[in-house]
Amino acid sequence: MKKKDTAPSEGKISTTPFPKSTKIYVAGSIHKNVKVAMREVELSDTVDSMTQKRSKNQSVVIYDTSGPYTDPNKTINVHQGIEPIREEWIMGRGDVEELDEFSSEYCRLRMADKSLDHLRFDLKRKPKRAKKGQNVSQMHYAKKGIITPEMEYIAIRENQKVLDAIRLTKQHPGQSFGASIPDTITPEFVRDEVARGRAVIPSNINHPEAEPMIIGRNFLVKINANIGNSATTSSIEEEVEKAVWACRWGADNIMDLSTGKNIHETREWIVRNSPVPIGTVPIYQALEKVNGKAEDLTWEIFRDTLIEQAEQGVDYFTIHAGVRLAYVPMTAKRVTGIVSRGGSIMAKWCLAHHKESFLYTHFEDICEIMKAYDVAFSLGDGLRPGSIADANDEAQFAELETLGELTKIAWKHEVQTFIEGPGHVPMHMIKANMDKQIEVCGEAPFYTLGPLTTDIAPGYDHITSGIGAAMIGWYGTAMLCYVTPKEHLGLPNKEDVRTGVITYKIAAHAADLAKGHPGSQHRDDALSKARFEFRWEDQFNLSLDPELAREYHDETLPAEGAKIAHFCSMCGPNFCSMKISQEVRDYAAQKDMDEQTALEEGMKEKAAEFKDKGSEVYL
Amino acid sequence: MKKKDTAPSEGKISTTPFPKSTKIYVAGSIHKNVKVAMREVELSDTVDSMTQKRSKNQSVVIYDTSGPYTDPNKTINVHQGIEPIREEWIMGRGDVEELDEFSSEYCRLRMADKSLDHLRFDLKRKPKRAKKGQNVSQMHYAKKGIITPEMEYIAIRENQKVLDAIRLTKQHPGQSFGASIPDTITPEFVRDEVARGRAVIPSNINHPEAEPMIIGRNFLVKINANIGNSATTSSIEEEVEKAVWACRWGADNIMDLSTGKNIHETREWIVRNSPVPIGTVPIYQALEKVNGKAEDLTWEIFRDTLIEQAEQGVDYFTIHAGVRLAYVPMTAKRVTGIVSRGGSIMAKWCLAHHKESFLYTHFEDICEIMKAYDVAFSLGDGLRPGSIADANDEAQFAELETLGELTKIAWKHEVQTFIEGPGHVPMHMIKANMDKQIEVCGEAPFYTLGPLTTDIAPGYDHITSGIGAAMIGWYGTAMLCYVTPKEHLGLPNKEDVRTGVITYKIAAHAADLAKGHPGSQHRDDALSKARFEFRWEDQFNLSLDPELAREYHDETLPAEGAKIAHFCSMCGPNFCSMKISQEVRDYAAQKDMDEQTALEEGMKEKAAEFKDKGSEVYL
Repeated sequence: MKKKDTAPSEGKISTTPFPKSTKIYVAGSIHKNVKVAMREVELSDTVDSMTQKRSKNQSVVIYDTSGPYTDPNKTINVHQGIEPIREEWIMGRGDVEELDEFSSEYCRLRMADKSLDHLRFDLKRKPKRAKKGQNVSQMHYAKKGIITPEMEYIAIRENQKVLDAIRLTKQHPGQSFGASIPDTITPEFVRDEVARGRAVIPSNINHPEAEPMIIGRNFLVKINANIGNSATTSSIEEEVEKAVWACRWGADNIMDLSTGKNIHETREWIVRNSPVPIGTVPIYQALEKVNGKAEDLTWEIFRDTLIEQAEQGVDYFTIHAGVRLAYVPMTAKRVTGIVSRGGSIMAKWCLAHHKESFLYTHFEDICEIMKAYDVAFSLGDGLRPGSIADANDEAQFAELETLGELTKIAWKHEVQTFIEGPGHVPMHMIKANMDKQIEVCGEAPFYTLGPLTTDIAPGYDHITSGIGAAMIGWYGTAMLCYVTPKEHLGLPNKEDVRTGVITYKIAAHAADLAKGHPGSQHRDDALSKARFEFRWEDQFNLSLDPELAREYHDETLPAEGAKIAHFCSMCGPNFCSMKISQEVRDYAAQKDMDEQTALEEGMKEKAAEFKDKGSEVYL
Repeated sequence: MKKKDTAPSEGKISTTPFPKSTKIYVAGSIHKNVKVAMREVELSDTVDSMTQKRSKNQSVVIYDTSGPYTDPNKTINVHQGIEPIREEWIMGRGDVEELDEFSSEYCRLRMADKSLDHLRFDLKRKPKRAKKGQNVSQMHYAKKGIITPEMEYIAIRENQKVLDAIRLTKQHPGQSFGASIPDTITPEFVRDEVARGRAVIPSNINHPEAEPMIIGRNFLVKINANIGNSATTSSIEEEVEKAVWACRWGADNIMDLSTGKNIHETREWIVRNSPVPIGTVPIYQALEKVNGKAEDLTWEIFRDTLIEQAEQGVDYFTIHAGVRLAYVPMTAKRVTGIVSRGGSIMAKWCLAHHKESFLYTHFEDICEIMKAYDVAFSLGDGLRPGSIADANDEAQFAELETLGELTKIAWKHEVQTFIEGPGHVPMHMIKANMDKQIEVCGEAPFYTLGPLTTDIAPGYDHITSGIGAAMIGWYGTAMLCYVTPKEHLGLPNKEDVRTGVITYKIAAHAADLAKGHPGSQHRDDALSKARFEFRWEDQFNLSLDPELAREYHDETLPAEGAKIAHFCSMCGPNFCSMKISQEVRDYAAQKDMDEQTALEEGMKEKAAEFKDKGSEVYL
């Protein structure tokens, strides 16, 4: 069953562009070498069903996470990795040095191991680290008042070229529960949000390939997709393709949660080919280094792992430093104990040694490493509830308090930080999580897994959690960690990754709409207009998954002609309400007057009659 | 492509019982001939990983909508239909007469048509109608203080045999937004809720096959599945199997929305074989009778259609009587006009005739028909929004006010009534729908389609709408109308029906949990305990879709041994947090003391040390 690991081959990487879509690059004005990738969807004309007159529909620009893979003008070579667009910006700041060799002992061992040559990514660049005494975090720059190219990139990207007129007026006012979303995202706003810790730009200086993105409550809600091999299944090739594939469907970030063989080499391939930031849980690899024995973990092994991964370019580390010895007993009577892998590893270590966790005691040492590479903290919720029964319990909230304490320490070091959240939580208990997180973590971004709103649907946990994710996104969570249909049951395959990503794009977008994020309704309106006008192709092309939408339509009405049919495949011609609505409008037009007037005329004729009878038929 | 219609064959009906499940029948105490079907899931023992000591796990009883199909002791014959369990109760009340022939002219024409003989269900029973001057609605009985067998059936069914001790204490207190959910559902409570119009028991006297169920805010949230053929696709056989299939996965009600050929005959097969109430939108069939020309519809044709369907046994009718002439102009400037099929048909009729809708003007005539058969009103939201842009607009809320007015008229006639709701609504605008509905409709049950929380995901609209459905269910909606992945794109096939039903079971259950419905957390807790204890089979069997859960687990770890493996297939043995949690507990047990004490001991040793340093490592 297990395949032998090899390097990935070109042909396995998905590069098909989206239908009727053009990759565009919007230039910066502060930083001329900033070129923000977006996807522009061309729309067909509206044809008036009465007069056959055509009118143009403005193309729609979509936030694009797919990287160069969907640009037919770019040559993709997984063995070279993608273009390091941030390289010039990073080196240009003058605070970074290139190292002659990797600082991590483990990394040097792997590099020297000839038996791994066949599956090693051949990196031509040297690893980078902050010069002695320097802090290369975006937070550090932000606090100094510097608008980095990353910040300008993000400002342009977040606005999605939606015109002011549309962004500010053509949508419902939202309810953002106290967020401070501006009408337009400016580079200065990005800087300010990063400076005050309300937003994070994951941007390791060793991952120049990543396109800058931001995680914060006042920006578009982002999603994270988990990939990674395990001891029981999958290969390097599959994982690289899964990463590219996840970005294709809309993943803003990827976490590589590999726990199987060749973790170091697998990660290298993923990072070099990823257009989005990469996160990891370093304790997983550290555990592999001590053959799975949690009690054998040491600060030294963990520290070497952090440096190993930081020099590979990992953009954020999940660190379960909030699992304090005192909290472990609080989980003993839970229905599902500790369900976080990292949390349980640290709990086991604490108990075995009867000592406070080394992640907690060495937290400031970790900060020193983070700021030398600009790795962001994703403070792990090792004690998150794994069942409805355990939601919002003492252990969970005790840990959250500690995460708040650690956030302030990280900020003292000007290290970017966000906070992980649950888990399994029934709907009515979700908001308490968000409120408490904002309160104790000083508005540091929240990054949640789901939450799952019931335990009874294994096989459908993308949905049980998508419900909770949409809600907590609305309440203020900045990034949603996807859950796939395989959650609790198995390792996700490519189709599961797609389903998980699309589900979470839905949750994130529903949250943006509910928050009233400026411009967020634009795509909905364009798609609905296309739907109403039977512009089937436009409806497909504007959707989150154009391929599936078309496939489903084909299933009922496969003919090409059906794609321009003026009725819906579900109901047939007589029962299509859209068609009848059009007829209602046409009816008015036929009477050769403005439809509104026509309808009002109709009303006036009746009005007198009704008045005689009283305004209601039944009194 | 189109198949010729024939009668269904036996082999196509799904009858496999659920794994480790026994159909049980709980007897009534007021009415001895009440036997409430439920499904009891047997669980395996918990085996202590240290001592190998076994302890029993109480079986879990599940609300069962699947009817006799999953009872291996029942013989299924689609040509005979299922057992008319309510026949005796209905006839026993003495207020019903049997008719020698069907009252509907159209029905008699169809019965006389020899060319339809091969596809006709051979009904042996005579149609029933209330004796002159009688009202056979459950609301009428309720108001007279009568507890019917239907009411007792429902009381027993709603409690699901969950023990008081579990129901009342072992779950989170909910937030029900002013609902009045009792600790235990009594027959008297059911009666009282029906009497005051807060709950509906769809129970046409000509559908004695249906197992009684209730729709109301103070009961478990229910779901409805839409099936039905169309002019472009599907057969009688497929539709009957779809109905049985939908019930299998948890549909509480079915709407037959057929708009294609042989609607009358298709419906007969569905009703005779359906263990759940059936709803229709009679205007669809009426429109077919006038060859799709809305303007040719008349009250007489519609009236005959109501009687035709009432005598077949349809339990509730969607009637779009709220689409008043005055409201039609309000939709002219919408992004998606009128998207309800029934609504658009009536709008077209109103405009063509420049007259108030005959559904509105003849509303009291309709009430007379409804009470002669106990057909419930599902007052249709013909002007529901079809896009995010159109949510909560003037047209929608104007119609809702009229539905409130009509509710009161229906209640005056003691006709059971619930109200349909949107549609497409962003999350932050959902609650306003619920609040307004409660306010203007006097707490009549709300029955919503979704709502869809974004427009941009055709192909995934079970999810965009499942989010909204869970939320509005929490806020107080009594029944959720499912949306399948094919919404907007095509007609759902069997797999789509399953996906739609399970998605909506998730939404309904998540709502029950959030409302704090007594006993609702019981199944979550049992499943989570099984998950934590690696009782894989129990986890599968307690899930909403045991087949899929098992299938997904098999994909990663197909071996039978993996079903008893003490690690999760996703992570492998070293990384399974559940396993480590168990070890944490075992660790304590090993020290030969109570685990809680052990952990606290560990704490005490450290406590002194910590106190010396201060309680936080970083100060």
